[in-house]
Amino acid sequence: MSTPPIETFPNPAPNRRYVITHVNPEFTSVCPKTGLPDFGTVTIRYIPRERCIELKSLKYYYLSYRNEGIFYEAVTNKILDDLVAACDPEEMTVTTEWRTRGGIHSIIEASYHRSQQQ
Amino acid sequence: MSTPPIETFPNPAPNRRYVITHVNPEFTSVCPKTGLPDFGTVTIRYIPRERCIELKSLKYYYLSYRNEGIFYEAVTNKILDDLVAACDPEEMTVTTEWRTRGGIHSIIEASYHRSQQQ
Amino acid sequence: MSTPPIETFPNPAPNRRYVITHVNPEFTSVCPKTGLPDFGTVTIRYIPRERCIELKSLKYYYLSYRNEGIFYEAVTNKILDDLVAACDPEEMTVTTEWRTRGGIHSIIEASYHRSQQQ
Amino acid sequence: MSTPPIETFPNPAPNRRYVITHVNPEFTSVCPKTGLPDFGTVTIRYIPRERCIELKSLKYYYLSYRNEGIFYEAVTNKILDDLVAACDPEEMTVTTEWRTRGGIHSIIEASYHRSQQQ
Amino acid sequence: MSTPPIETFPNPAPNRRYVITHVNPEFTSVCPKTGLPDFGTVTIRYIPRERCIELKSLKYYYLSYRNEGIFYEAVTNKILDDLVAACDPEEMTVTTEWRTRGGIHSIIEASYHRSQQQ
Amino acid sequence: MSTPPIETFPNPAPNRRYVITHVNPEFTSVCPKTGLPDFGTVTIRYIPRERCIELKSLKYYYLSYRNEGIFYEAVTNKILDDLVAACDPEEMTVTTEWRTRGGIHSIIEASYHRSQQQ
Amino acid sequence: MSTPPIETFPNPAPNRRYVITHVNPEFTSVCPKTGLPDFGTVTIRYIPRERCIELKSLKYYYLSYRNEGIFYEAVTNKILDDLVAACDPEEMTVTTEWRTRGGIHSIIEASYHRSQQQ
Amino acid sequence: MSTPPIETFPNPAPNRRYVITHVNPEFTSVCPKTGLPDFGTVTIRYIPRERCIELKSLKYYYLSYRNEGIFYEAVTNKILDDLVAACDPEEMTVTTEWRTRGGIHSIIEASYHRSQQQ
Amino acid sequence: MSTPPIETFPNPAPNRRYVITHVNPEFTSVCPKTGLPDFGTVTIRYIPRERCIELKSLKYYYLSYRNEGIFYEAVTNKILDDLVAACDPEEMTVTTEWRTRGGIHSIIEASYHRSQQQ
Amino acid sequence: MSTPPIETFPNPAPNRRYVITHVNPEFTSVCPKTGLPDFGTVTIRYIPRERCIELKSLKYYYLSYRNEGIFYEAVTNKILDDLVAACDPEEMTVTTEWRTRGGIHSIIEASYHRSQQQ
Repeated sequence: MSTPPIETFPNPAPNRRYVITHVNPEFTSVCPKTGLPDFGTVTIRYIPRERCIELKSLKYYYLSYRNEGIFYEAVTNKILDDLVAACDPEEMTVTTEWRTRGGIHSIIEASYHRSQQQ
Repeated sequence: MSTPPIETFPNPAPNRRYVITHVNPEFTSVCPKTGLPDFGTVTIRYIPRERCIELKSLKYYYLSYRNEGIFYEAVTNKILDDLVAACDPEEMTVTTEWRTRGGIHSIIEASYHRSQQQ
Repeated sequence: MSTPPIETFPNPAPNRRYVITHVNPEFTSVCPKTGLPDFGTVTIRYIPRERCIELKSLKYYYLSYRNEGIFYEAVTNKILDDLVAACDPEEMTVTTEWRTRGGIHSIIEASYHRSQQQ
Repeated sequence: MSTPPIETFPNPAPNRRYVITHVNPEFTSVCPKTGLPDFGTVTIRYIPRERCIELKSLKYYYLSYRNEGIFYEAVTNKILDDLVAACDPEEMTVTTEWRTRGGIHSIIEASYHRSQQQ
Repeated sequence: MSTPPIETFPNPAPNRRYVITHVNPEFTSVCPKTGLPDFGTVTIRYIPRERCIELKSLKYYYLSYRNEGIFYEAVTNKILDDLVAACDPEEMTVTTEWRTRGGIHSIIEASYHRSQQQ
Repeated sequence: MSTPPIETFPNPAPNRRYVITHVNPEFTSVCPKTGLPDFGTVTIRYIPRERCIELKSLKYYYLSYRNEGIFYEAVTNKILDDLVAACDPEEMTVTTEWRTRGGIHSIIEASYHRSQQQ
Repeated sequence: MSTPPIETFPNPAPNRRYVITHVNPEFTSVCPKTGLPDFGTVTIRYIPRERCIELKSLKYYYLSYRNEGIFYEAVTNKILDDLVAACDPEEMTVTTEWRTRGGIHSIIEASYHRSQQQ
Repeated sequence: MSTPPIETFPNPAPNRRYVITHVNPEFTSVCPKTGLPDFGTVTIRYIPRERCIELKSLKYYYLSYRNEGIFYEAVTNKILDDLVAACDPEEMTVTTEWRTRGGIHSIIEASYHRSQQQ
Repeated sequence: MSTPPIETFPNPAPNRRYVITHVNPEFTSVCPKTGLPDFGTVTIRYIPRERCIELKSLKYYYLSYRNEGIFYEAVTNKILDDLVAACDPEEMTVTTEWRTRGGIHSIIEASYHRSQQQ
Repeated sequence: MSTPPIETFPNPAPNRRYVITHVNPEFTSVCPKTGLPDFGTVTIRYIPRERCIELKSLKYYYLSYRNEGIFYEAVTNKILDDLVAACDPEEMTVTTEWRTRGGIHSIIEASYHRSQQQ
């Protein structure tokens, strides 16, 4: 799949370690097995370095998954990879919480720490 | 008792330590003392290595307890043993929360840490 | 299916119109289409005449559905018919609320009014 | 059983139809079948005529049930009878809500309307 | 006791029957029996005619009860009488909800309907 | 737009007036003005006559709106029209509740009463 | 004050009596006495005739109060008058709920019924 | 006071450190000063060694306090002492939460750690 | 201001480090600037040494602030100082949470650790 | 923009490390991109040294943002800078939580630690 670009803007306080959280309770993609839609809440939490994520482009980025077939574990890791590539943060965590399927609901949480990359 | 196999699929991000949680609020088994049903919520939380647990087989695995007589403490530890055997995770925690019996409700929580095994 | 008898005891205040409610959040039966279990809360609310429903026999009556295949609409009407036959109340309402299946959850409510029977 | 007297005091606004509610979430009595304690919330709601119920005596009245064996339906109707006798209200409703027993919780509600007595 | 005057202002829509509600969760007075403070929430709900109640004077009116000994039933009826006298409404209801005393909490509700006065 | 057929099955209690409710918190369509997705909960509540609505076909019916541009008021009335045509009920109400757009969230509720048609 | 026009669009189901609700939890105006801002939730609920209220223009209409000094009772009635004038509904109710001021929070509710106008 | 014995059964997973929690919201004892009943929730949380606490005997153990006069601080420590003596756990915490008395509610929490005993 | 004495009683388990919490949601004092009452919840949490705080005297101690003018920060620190002086605990934390004033609500938390005093 | 001065008063307990929290759920500013208002809750939490923040001046400080265009990340850091400058605390954290825009809601949290400044 090709996703729209995630835009960024200059961090207004680049010398301070602080935390930005964006919560999207309206995420939807498609189960690759059944072709049925999945619904979830995607939360990103990051410590910016030079760039912050621009909210409108983030919304369109999420929208690009609407008719894509992708598993919970894969979409969570892909969002993390894409957002880290876009804004090069100090740290970032992506959490996805999914509505009940077959009586079970799921939560996936993946993190990136810049200092732990080589 | 014999339980159906727990299927797995390849972890899409095997190089990242991340956390997967599956919550099943529809677990039921039978009290071995009274023969009456017990109802509970079973939550598994794990850090995968090479394999992730497939959700549909997990549902059928849980269903196999429906008419089995087994104590709270035993079923919690057995689920942990079976799921660890199935997917060989880095870490896993199984929590079972049970509806009121005799005015008392109970929670059992057991964990596995791969690094602490010899 | 054959269900165990619902026992009753004499109403301690037969000259007063009053309301008795029993809520069972631990009802489970089986979907006749898929063979998978359904979970729900069954609430009965009635105005007794000469007889009240005995709670322990009600519990065993509910348990008899555990491995029966029956639709939401049918089980709700059958519980109402069985309980009315057992205690001949002035009025009775049975409400069943079911956990999510396929993203949809359902509520069925059926009532009996003695004065409206011929 | 003998219960302590329920004291009353003169209604400060006898010419106005108004509603007084007292909620006691700390009621306990004993199940006559099993000898085990029952726990519930007793709510009384009434329109006074000449006399209002005094709260301290109401507390001691409730306490007198602590070690008495009595069924849900009976205790609800007895409290209503005793309080109506004590204060001769225009209307009164007694509602008892009981904690889970055998997976089922119950609510009993009985009312008195002075105008409907002969 | 003497209470400060309740001020009013002209109803901006005197030709429309509409409802105004003011909720004060910070009411306190004193129990005349024990001398200990009572705490409650006082809600007034009324349909104005020519005059509306001014909020700041209402606040000071409530404050005047802070060190007064008065029973639940009496204070509820007195507030209703005082506010009806101040603004001559079409209808008014005063509800007082009191924090737990001796394990029991209480609610008193009194209403005035202009059309039912002679 | 063309929607998939809504299947029905025979009402198991056609001689009793009773109420069936199905709640779908996972409805999504598209705003015809902006092209952006709308998310909502669709609740149907009906009294069946000869036929009940089959749940799986209802799910696929809802899915057919996923990429359709349609206004809140129009979709609510269209669902009501389609479901009434499918099962010819005694009464039916469709309620749609929509997530916040521009700081405002909306609820639309439309009903059909067979006895009021000519 | 001059407010921006409230736009409308044709009711897609003009032959059916149905109910539209729009909730805005982000309303703010200014207290004319103190000059301090007031914050509230404005809910409109109406049965349309020929025209429905367009949401974007409603948002801008609400925004025009941001720096206006106006009392709770006046703003509620003015919104009702303006919206009735804009869409000529069968019925409409405006409810405003305000955040705490001086320890008291307030709710104002005004309605219009076309059939009761002469 | 003499309390009934607390029975135990063999831990089904003695080689794993795991946590068992039992919550009893129906505890009642008597205030030794006033003779009035106290109501609370007792929670025990422990890591078993060789023996687990049997639930039915735990229920009867709690019941034995029903007519005993004992202070909050004393009953909490006595339950901890008795349960540690019964099952010799690795760790145990007893928490008691009490309903409001004189406008104040209280929580007492005491722990035992086997490794810290000499 | 002079406050009534805080009474204590011997700790029934002086050899165990355990935690006692008392929550009073009915605290009221007076703002020294405006003369208007403040309302808050005062929570004390401490590890006793030789003496425990007696609840009835604590209630009267709190009551002594009812008509005292004192700031949030000052009253929190004064309660901590007075209670530490009364019972000489191992540790104590006092938390005060205050109802909204001018749209803002406040929480103050102060602690004492015996080991950190010289 | 120019903001009104933040007043302070002497810390009544300068020798104790304690925590003061002020929560303002009524913050509003303007989005610099769209000109539309943003609404949020601003929470400050600090450990004072010599001076505490005076609440009334804090309210007016917040009010000065009402018609200012400023981004989430910028306003959070500016409030932190201004308040640190005003009261020179040991530590301070500012958290801003914003209402949904485009289906996404955001939280920004920035902290200052005096010991980490050079």
